[in-house]
Formats: sequence, C-alpha cells, structure tokens
Amino acid sequence: MESIGRKRWAIAEGYIPSQSSFSDRSLVSHETACILNAGDSEAHIEITVFFADREPAGSYRVKVGPRRTLHLRFNDLTEPAPIPRDTDYASVFESDVPIVVQHTRLDSREAEVSLLSTIAYAQA
Amino acid sequence: MESIGRKRWAIAEGYIPSQSSFSDRSLVSHETACILNAGDSEAHIEITVFFADREPAGSYRVKVGPRRTLHLRFNDLTEPAPIPRDTDYASVFESDVPIVVQHTRLDSREAEVSLLSTIAYAQA
Amino acid sequence: MESIGRKRWAIAEGYIPSQSSFSDRSLVSHETACILNAGDSEAHIEITVFFADREPAGSYRVKVGPRRTLHLRFNDLTEPAPIPRDTDYASVFESDVPIVVQHTRLDSREAEVSLLSTIAYAQA
Amino acid sequence: MESIGRKRWAIAEGYIPSQSSFSDRSLVSHETACILNAGDSEAHIEITVFFADREPAGSYRVKVGPRRTLHLRFNDLTEPAPIPRDTDYASVFESDVPIVVQHTRLDSREAEVSLLSTIAYAQA
Repeated sequence: MESIGRKRWAIAEGYIPSQSSFSDRSLVSHETACILNAGDSEAHIEITVFFADREPAGSYRVKVGPRRTLHLRFNDLTEPAPIPRDTDYASVFESDVPIVVQHTRLDSREAEVSLLSTIAYAQA
Repeated sequence: MESIGRKRWAIAEGYIPSQSSFSDRSLVSHETACILNAGDSEAHIEITVFFADREPAGSYRVKVGPRRTLHLRFNDLTEPAPIPRDTDYASVFESDVPIVVQHTRLDSREAEVSLLSTIAYAQA
Repeated sequence: MESIGRKRWAIAEGYIPSQSSFSDRSLVSHETACILNAGDSEAHIEITVFFADREPAGSYRVKVGPRRTLHLRFNDLTEPAPIPRDTDYASVFESDVPIVVQHTRLDSREAEVSLLSTIAYAQA
Repeated sequence: MESIGRKRWAIAEGYIPSQSSFSDRSLVSHETACILNAGDSEAHIEITVFFADREPAGSYRVKVGPRRTLHLRFNDLTEPAPIPRDTDYASVFESDVPIVVQHTRLDSREAEVSLLSTIAYAQA
C-alpha cells in the first residue's frame, strides 16, 4: 500500500501512573504510542523523551515492519533508561518513512478504568 | 452541501476488548469509525486493517450515501474476516470522495463505561 | 486579537445518550461543540446536522461575539428541531470568520462520569 | 534537536470542576496545557483566556526552557487572575518559538476518575 503519514511527530502529554487497580497487563495503568507503518518499507524510528527539569532521554529506537502496526508501551521502554512513573514527560518521533502516531493512556489508579486518546502532532 | 474532508485517513489505535459489563448494544465494548459524507455523491470506501505480526486484512468495503453519516462498528465487520478481539490493530480508509473520519472506543470491561475519541489522521 | 482558526469544521461523531445518573445540568449526559472566536468580529455560524438514514437537519444558527467562547450544547438546540437522543449524528460548522471547534461528550448513563474530546476537522 | 510545532495554538474547550473526590494533587480535578519545546531556544509564551460573557483575561506569561516540557495546570494560574471554576473558557497560546500544545482534563467530581485529551488547534 502507498504509505500514509509524516516522518516527525510529537506528543506533548505524557504521564504513567505508578499505581493500578489490576494486575492484568491489559488493565495496568499505561501509555501507548500507536504507530502505523502502512507503507512497503520498514520504519526505523528514534524516540526522544522530554522532561520538565532535565535534559531529554534517548534516543529510544524501534522498528515497525512494512504494513504493520506497533502499539508501543512507554512502560516497556528500558534502553537507554526506563520512563519514570508519576512524572510529566513528552516525546518526539522521527522516522525514516512516513508513519502515523496516536497517543493513548489507560489509567486504573482508582477502581475503574479511564481512557484518553488523541492523534499526535504531525510536522508538515 | 459542498463536500468536506479528505480521501485518505488513518487510525493508528485499535483494540476491541472481548469483555463487557453490559449486554445492551450501546454499552457493549466497541470501536467505531464515525464517517461523515457531507457531499452530494455516494462515498465508496475501502478499509484496510493492519496488525502487529501479520499481513493486513481487507479490503473491507462500505458505502456512505450523500449527506449521510455512518458510525461503523469495527465489531460488526465480517467480510472478508471479523476483527479479532483483544488484539492491537490499525486502519486506513480510502474513499473516492472527501469524507471525515473520527475514531471512538467505548470500554466497559469493568463496571463503568470509559470512552476515548480522536479525529483520525487526514492525508493532505 | 488576531483571529485564529478556520471557517469550515466537521465533527463526524455525535451521540447524545438519553439517560443520565444525575440531574445536575453539569452532569447530565450531553455533547458540546466548544467554539472559540478569538477575533474582533462577531461570528455568524450555520450548523448542519447529518444522520444515518435521512436528510440533514438545519441550518441551526448561532452567533459568537468577538473575543468570546460559546460551549454550545447539542442538547439545547431546538430550532428548527431538537437533536434526537440515542441516535448517531454528525455536524458541519460554517462561519463567516475564523473560529476553532472542539467536540466533547459527557456520558453519565452509568453511575460514573465518562468523557471524550477531540479537536474537530478543519477544512484547509 | 530541531524544533517542532507552531507558534500559535488554540484550545476551544475549557472547564475546571470545583469539586473533587480526592485531595491528592494528582487526582484533584484539573485541566492541563501540556507544552513541548523541543528546540534549543527558550520559549516565551503568552496565554489569553476567553469567556462566554466578558472580555478575555491575560496575558498569562510562561517560559519553557529549551528541550523541556511544561505540563501547565490552568488551576495554578494566578497572575493576573485565577481561572474561575465551573466556568466555560477557552485559550490561545502565542509563542516566540515553535511549540506543541495538548489539552487534558482530569475530572474527579464523582468517585472515579475521568479523562479527556486532544491535540490543540495549530495555526498554519
């Protein structure tokens, strides 16, 4: 399929609650960057994570195969360093081919599940 | 009315929970692509569904009449194959006339209802 | 202030639940089009409402003063006809000056409050 | 890092509930403008707040350092005046360097947490 999207994206919101009301992976509090690579070339993506009071972390490097989607949990990032919990952050995605990025949080600190989602900002 | 929108859209997020706390159709866990065709020609739309670890499914084909909206549930897609539950996916919409696409999920796995929504990504 | 925004906007999602767990106006299930007119001229806006299976309703006409915001509840529209509850709809906004439109739903069908919001689609 | 974003942003939605079910700062009802300044120059930002029935308030002035994110709570703004609670508002952000703005609300009026988020409107 013809590719769709942009090569540079930003998510200004970011916050992973340290607490959860559930132990099931699907219901643990988490943040996800949903990445779609609809094109026919593998996407090589560098993610930089920004904080309020210190220099950015990264680059985190992920690959998304051609015609694949990766719902990347920020919770799972470890290299070069885990994303701290209960901490404001933001992120920038730089890809070598066009991708689409959507940001989602599931918050289960209290007994029920709460969700937010938005398309990320695409640099024209 | 003059048409509004774009012909190519993408939703990078996608996840239909297999569980629900309610049996009423309006409260069963579901994902919807809300499609608006404000123009005066019928829209013929091909939807391709992307996964993390296998080739895309589709095309799913839907029509939206002139001056009509279709709130299409991914749960209801069957041809060529149902969308698997509890599985990460993404989608691309290709229409022959301009449309607008918005993505919404209702999650009722736990006892209360949680919602997310975002405008989809429109290819310029 | 210099105006900001566009003159044509669309919201593809639309659904007002008929039920609520609360009687307080702020917690009754509702949908809102938040309109910002940051410029120095009054905005005259025509809203057309689209349905799945019949011709559009409208135009609904609203004004937003210069340097004012109007958080317009779809629940409150009456002329030329109320928006039906428990019914899929969509909407298009046409203004004579640039405005910004954001779509929000508060759903209190069950005992807790659920929220969704997204920037609407702006025609370039 | 090369900057990303735009210099003028608008959030048409705005509403800070006066009530909360929790006293912990992270769970008090609040609205946030998440601002990312990915570039190498400090961002000087002027925020104007719009209301339904009176002239705008502001400018509120904030700085965001190079390569930093600020998750600014509207609840915390005091100069020139606090944002009234239980009141519809909207906001415009004007920066001297490109930034990205995302809008988030946490509503804990009832016993559970509800969230909404969307990318703001970026003036091209």
